[in-house]
Amino acid sequence: MGAAAFCYALWTRHLRHNPANPNWVDRDRFVLSAGHASMLLYSLLHLTGYDLSLDEIENFRQYGSKTPGHPEYGQTPGVEVTTGPLGQGFGNGVGMAIAQRHLAAIFNRQGHDIIGHYIYAMVSDGDMQEGVSSEAASLAGSLGLGNMIYLYDDNGIQIEGSTAGVFDENVADRFRAYGWHVVGPLDGNDLSAVGAAIEEAKAEQDRPSLIICRTQIGYGSPRANSARAHGEPLGADNVKAAKENLGWPVEPPFYVPDEVYAHMRNARDRGMTLEADWDRRFEKYALEYPDLAFRLQQQIKGHLPEDWESSLEGLFDRLEKPIATRAASGKVLNALAETIPALMGGSADLGPSNKTILDSCPQFTRDEPAGRNLRFGVREHSMGAIATGLALHGGIIPYTGTFLTFADYMRPSMRLAALTGVRVIYVFSHDSIGLGEDGPTHQPVEHLMSLRCIPNMTVIRPADAPETLEAWKAALTNTGGPTALVLTRQSVPIIDRAQCALASGLHKGAYILWQSGEGDPGVILVGTGSETAIALEAGKTIAKDGLNVRVVSMPSWELFARQDETYRETVLPARVTARVAVEAGITFGWERYIGTRGKVVGLTTFGHSAPYQELYEKFGITAARVVEEARSLLSS
Amino acid sequence: MGAAAFCYALWTRHLRHNPANPNWVDRDRFVLSAGHASMLLYSLLHLTGYDLSLDEIENFRQYGSKTPGHPEYGQTPGVEVTTGPLGQGFGNGVGMAIAQRHLAAIFNRQGHDIIGHYIYAMVSDGDMQEGVSSEAASLAGSLGLGNMIYLYDDNGIQIEGSTAGVFDENVADRFRAYGWHVVGPLDGNDLSAVGAAIEEAKAEQDRPSLIICRTQIGYGSPRANSARAHGEPLGADNVKAAKENLGWPVEPPFYVPDEVYAHMRNARDRGMTLEADWDRRFEKYALEYPDLAFRLQQQIKGHLPEDWESSLEGLFDRLEKPIATRAASGKVLNALAETIPALMGGSADLGPSNKTILDSCPQFTRDEPAGRNLRFGVREHSMGAIATGLALHGGIIPYTGTFLTFADYMRPSMRLAALTGVRVIYVFSHDSIGLGEDGPTHQPVEHLMSLRCIPNMTVIRPADAPETLEAWKAALTNTGGPTALVLTRQSVPIIDRAQCALASGLHKGAYILWQSGEGDPGVILVGTGSETAIALEAGKTIAKDGLNVRVVSMPSWELFARQDETYRETVLPARVTARVAVEAGITFGWERYIGTRGKVVGLTTFGHSAPYQELYEKFGITAARVVEEARSLLSS
Repeated sequence: MGAAAFCYALWTRHLRHNPANPNWVDRDRFVLSAGHASMLLYSLLHLTGYDLSLDEIENFRQYGSKTPGHPEYGQTPGVEVTTGPLGQGFGNGVGMAIAQRHLAAIFNRQGHDIIGHYIYAMVSDGDMQEGVSSEAASLAGSLGLGNMIYLYDDNGIQIEGSTAGVFDENVADRFRAYGWHVVGPLDGNDLSAVGAAIEEAKAEQDRPSLIICRTQIGYGSPRANSARAHGEPLGADNVKAAKENLGWPVEPPFYVPDEVYAHMRNARDRGMTLEADWDRRFEKYALEYPDLAFRLQQQIKGHLPEDWESSLEGLFDRLEKPIATRAASGKVLNALAETIPALMGGSADLGPSNKTILDSCPQFTRDEPAGRNLRFGVREHSMGAIATGLALHGGIIPYTGTFLTFADYMRPSMRLAALTGVRVIYVFSHDSIGLGEDGPTHQPVEHLMSLRCIPNMTVIRPADAPETLEAWKAALTNTGGPTALVLTRQSVPIIDRAQCALASGLHKGAYILWQSGEGDPGVILVGTGSETAIALEAGKTIAKDGLNVRVVSMPSWELFARQDETYRETVLPARVTARVAVEAGITFGWERYIGTRGKVVGLTTFGHSAPYQELYEKFGITAARVVEEARSLLSS
Repeated sequence: MGAAAFCYALWTRHLRHNPANPNWVDRDRFVLSAGHASMLLYSLLHLTGYDLSLDEIENFRQYGSKTPGHPEYGQTPGVEVTTGPLGQGFGNGVGMAIAQRHLAAIFNRQGHDIIGHYIYAMVSDGDMQEGVSSEAASLAGSLGLGNMIYLYDDNGIQIEGSTAGVFDENVADRFRAYGWHVVGPLDGNDLSAVGAAIEEAKAEQDRPSLIICRTQIGYGSPRANSARAHGEPLGADNVKAAKENLGWPVEPPFYVPDEVYAHMRNARDRGMTLEADWDRRFEKYALEYPDLAFRLQQQIKGHLPEDWESSLEGLFDRLEKPIATRAASGKVLNALAETIPALMGGSADLGPSNKTILDSCPQFTRDEPAGRNLRFGVREHSMGAIATGLALHGGIIPYTGTFLTFADYMRPSMRLAALTGVRVIYVFSHDSIGLGEDGPTHQPVEHLMSLRCIPNMTVIRPADAPETLEAWKAALTNTGGPTALVLTRQSVPIIDRAQCALASGLHKGAYILWQSGEGDPGVILVGTGSETAIALEAGKTIAKDGLNVRVVSMPSWELFARQDETYRETVLPARVTARVAVEAGITFGWERYIGTRGKVVGLTTFGHSAPYQELYEKFGITAARVVEEARSLLSS
């Protein structure tokens, strides 16, 4: 209710959108970062003529409605992004703004402003307090993203009461320090002031704009300016009082006069005219630049170029010497960047370690927006939110980079990416105690299993360079959700594929890598990532005893779970209960695949600072230990 | 090397510490937030005479040394806090400053400044970029924590290169906007300027101070001002060149002239004098205020008052009606606050929902530092870091509050708390789809299992009010690590303890709540939290068939894992393989306790926005479903 006036001003007078086509490429994006104000967004969508009926509005927060408690991408036409957890939308918008700037730099030509939209967001006090917003704001300022216009609903009230004593900072000064263009504070109910501010913001091309709108939470109701207006429904009496106070009929409960519809639904005509005009301009562009026009359409659809795999051919054919999977990943990524122009990303200041730098591309900066290397700074959380924004904008296939242990920093954004179902590729290197001397603060132990816990998150931990190549293919073709690539710091041997199954087995999640005999084995050894070679070594040792040993490479639990029962039973037959898994992470969770009888060679504690070879010995993550566990199973 | 000069100035001329007793209560705290500069800290500890030999320095980052790659609390005398993941130390220091302010307000008396120390930190560009620092800085400014003095090592270089284009913000202006007192930028090698700045900062009592020290990374070496000085060792040649350049003998490699020791180890004499003086002052204080003096000593040791459990007696005796465990937790917490003055905490703006507000205590503010209610604002991550700082300072038993789904936001701090082994109590309410209409962004699904993944994190999800009371007891007596209390939003029935086992079974992690017959049951039903009542209802239904059914309440996997094999076998006998677990979270992980034959009634996807009763039905988390699964096991 507090933000209704300035959002009305934005939506009816400035936002370039087409309610008849929520997917128009050059529409302005609107992000409701304060997702708890979902009804404000639903009302705007309904009133301006999106496919959202009054019935849906009345079914707010009910099972099967298009109006869930917080906006969810894909559930409601016109909802650009899933929000609710505060600060995320703020970061998503920065990602959209980077995408817009980049695509404009790549595709626009003299006289052809094909990509010319703005990114708007409505942000709240809570958004401003979350660290992820601070990170994103600092980066947006450094990148000079003048295509961003954020309206700050500054009402001074949060759930626990006034922001006084908790949030006394000067937000305007803080954003100026980030390099933003700040307008206001102004009265959020003063439509002409809001309009003038938006015009001023649109004219500012070199700095992101923050328009500070002073508002009253629960405006017009008896609970105006009170914390209870934040966390609780108003209740029937207060709704009645508010309507009376604002001069609105008390009945019916959901009342929209025809003249309001007539006024608001001008947005549809305006939107169709805007898009038709753009279509005409795009046709001219396509005549002059057919290749670019085709490529833009393909990128927006998220399609990979037909020849995208060609640059990978033979990439690792001559590889024999051990190589870290992070290094292999760097080679694959650089090869892919040649054929997939939509691929864009970077690291939270660990690019040289994560091997996420595209050698042939410049850095994306305010002066070089065509660059595809993003430097996020030491800001993992906003990196995650920005990546989701890049993906949601369309036209970009984003990837990120950091150490696996810092997946925790970006976890809220990763969860939302999984819930949203966007293709984001997270590169996580230094994936175990194998990082060595940096010690337990930097050694992931529980992270692999914790990521596997997130629904719709595909986690892949390849065993060697060829599996790393396949892992990237799997990530790029996983269009329904994010993929985490989990990579070693240390070198790992190249598995001899002449003796073992091909790395393409990775796409099934787990596959029989090697077996010493035929039929059901006496024991199954399962390895992931850097421990696959350990499992293989152990398998060969045990086979010398004349036993039938199977070694399974299991780079991805999620891909394996997507296979049919028959295939899974082929790899891990229920009747073979002698199983040993080896993974340099927590043992917890492995019961799913090794059963009650099986053994796990792994960790149950945090790591330690020491050279990695010593750590593997001390923690007993060795082929000898796997052999020992297997033998004890076989003799029991 | 860049920060050596200003840290030397601080450590030799300003820091009030006693190398002979790193635990002196009133010492200044020094937090190396830039944990990668661990060798700087180790050098200062060694040179000023802490129990850290030159051998340890030479054994940097080796197994069993006291000099791990990043500083670890408890491993090295004088290391106040485990750091490395950037931004955490920044937040920890704010927690220490709150503790200092609060304890000073409680214990100091006219003429008796018993608690009079400062909190210093060395922070880097990376710390400044992390969102957790922004959150903590904003709160510190709002709280007017004039006892904080942070020295910012502003070298403009990070791993990926210059900070230009990535971190162009004006840090001084940003911190002024937060309400900080900013000194500099000044030359970090100018000892007198640094000294004057520290004096100025000490004199400023109402605002936290930031001293901006311009420095050169790798100062004096051929790699000065280069990114390679950040992420890589200098190498022998560069070390040699640096020594030559700085006029230092090249050999021996670890050379400390006697006069340097003599000069630096003055710190020991000075420290012993400082502490002896404080001891004398404390004696006088103890004579005048014996109760306060005793209480301070007890609190600093982390001891609970002898009668701490007395306020809980009979708390829930008359309770019959269903009550949410978050509400029960609020009652327990308020009762405990009466007997445990060290208990202090709050919520990230969800206090009324988390039930974490102490009704009888004021809010901790700049004007009322004796208040025990902390309002963190919507800043979960820094809340986590601050809680660790409160615990590490000593004298405080901190608790936090937010929704379980936002555990993700604070996860990096929670992990470090577990690694550090501090007693922090995390209250997480709204622990499942049971929160209802707010929808999947707010419904935790994977969080319970993800928290169980963290080593040394004790997770407790009580079934009803009496178990909630026991859970708080378990958390308070768990002095070796953090505890997460996982609580419902919705009401849950009070289990009839006349028919069932007592709630004190919680301390064993899992216990036989009820059984229809004697001896080994035909089937075991396991429930946690709000689903325990569902398991019990299902058990009673199945028992009507004349079957021997056991219902196990399993509030804490970690407490159960700490029991001996015999006890665990008593509760979950290996020979009973017909088991059904019910938990409104992901099913993944339950294989540990239900085995390959057992069934889990839970979720495999994200939740949904709808009234919670409907969600339980739709997702099939019902007694009927548990009965069905149990019967199918019994007939198979």
